[in-house]
Amino acid sequence: MGTKGERTRSEIIEAAKGLFYRRGFGQTSFSDIVEQTGIRRGNINHYFRTKQDILKAVVEQRAGEYRAILADWDTRHRTPKQRLHRFVQMVAAYRHELTRFGCPIGTLCGELGKEPWESQDAARELFDVFRDWLTAQFEQLGEQKQARARALHLLGRAEGISVIGHVYRDPALVATEVRALNKWIDDL
Amino acid sequence: MGTKGERTRSEIIEAAKGLFYRRGFGQTSFSDIVEQTGIRRGNINHYFRTKQDILKAVVEQRAGEYRAILADWDTRHRTPKQRLHRFVQMVAAYRHELTRFGCPIGTLCGELGKEPWESQDAARELFDVFRDWLTAQFEQLGEQKQARARALHLLGRAEGISVIGHVYRDPALVATEVRALNKWIDDL
Repeated sequence: MGTKGERTRSEIIEAAKGLFYRRGFGQTSFSDIVEQTGIRRGNINHYFRTKQDILKAVVEQRAGEYRAILADWDTRHRTPKQRLHRFVQMVAAYRHELTRFGCPIGTLCGELGKEPWESQDAARELFDVFRDWLTAQFEQLGEQKQARARALHLLGRAEGISVIGHVYRDPALVATEVRALNKWIDDL
Repeated sequence: MGTKGERTRSEIIEAAKGLFYRRGFGQTSFSDIVEQTGIRRGNINHYFRTKQDILKAVVEQRAGEYRAILADWDTRHRTPKQRLHRFVQMVAAYRHELTRFGCPIGTLCGELGKEPWESQDAARELFDVFRDWLTAQFEQLGEQKQARARALHLLGRAEGISVIGHVYRDPALVATEVRALNKWIDDL
């Protein structure tokens, strides 16, 4: 279970993760985190001096979760095509969250890529995790030269689906586009 | 040229439009607009009481610009396929802005679709302008039943290209994906 300090730190990260997703990074204040966790500001500052420090921890947390999911898919699904379909199925499974708040990675990087932050580097790693895993799948499909371009194409398609689904708040639209992506994988 | 009042109003809208794009809506303050225009806060408030009021005017301004561009394309390009290619060419032409700040419509709607604003409705019109025009092109291509779905697919692809291009700050990536989109149109 970890020490009390570790539990407090995790609690702050979990709260911030949800707030950054639902409200955005810029619109989440220390007060929001205090309110959500019931942990005093001074105590939060004991673990994290700035909101950027919390962002770094949230990105690490997410990256760890994603790596664990992808490792699990690697053991569960034998062929690269099955794994690519599993990736697309994730988009479909999250369609209600995606149409409510957008893609957690895409909207975070979009926001951090604006002028006041200039700190997109801090979150790009989350895309790298998926890009590298997808690249490995396309390499196993024999697309050595194009593997990375294919991976970025698929990531872009998933992001585009999230943007349009979010704008029109329409999970059915996500489902339609996911079918098109599955067909694209089948035709590879 | 309009009255002095109209010119001042336009100046505020133009400044806000650029700031909302480069910094985001949430991170743009009245002070930023004062600083950029040299117009005093009290005078800005004479035209716009709240930032939401400025947002509304910026969206109207953008919607008007987009409608004018699309009307121009309608007269310049004879066939629906040529017009679809023209739309895709716009993405390619803006690749440096897109990779620097993301899509102006997509990042705005992404931000406004988060909890603190709940005002995505205010900006969705910008997507509607393109969706409806693209739908008309697909209808002219004889895709009556699927025309809207095709339009949303193409818009989503363009948005996905913007997200990935922005995350990796890579105009060449946009160019590669634009070629794939042109091929998709050719194959319709």
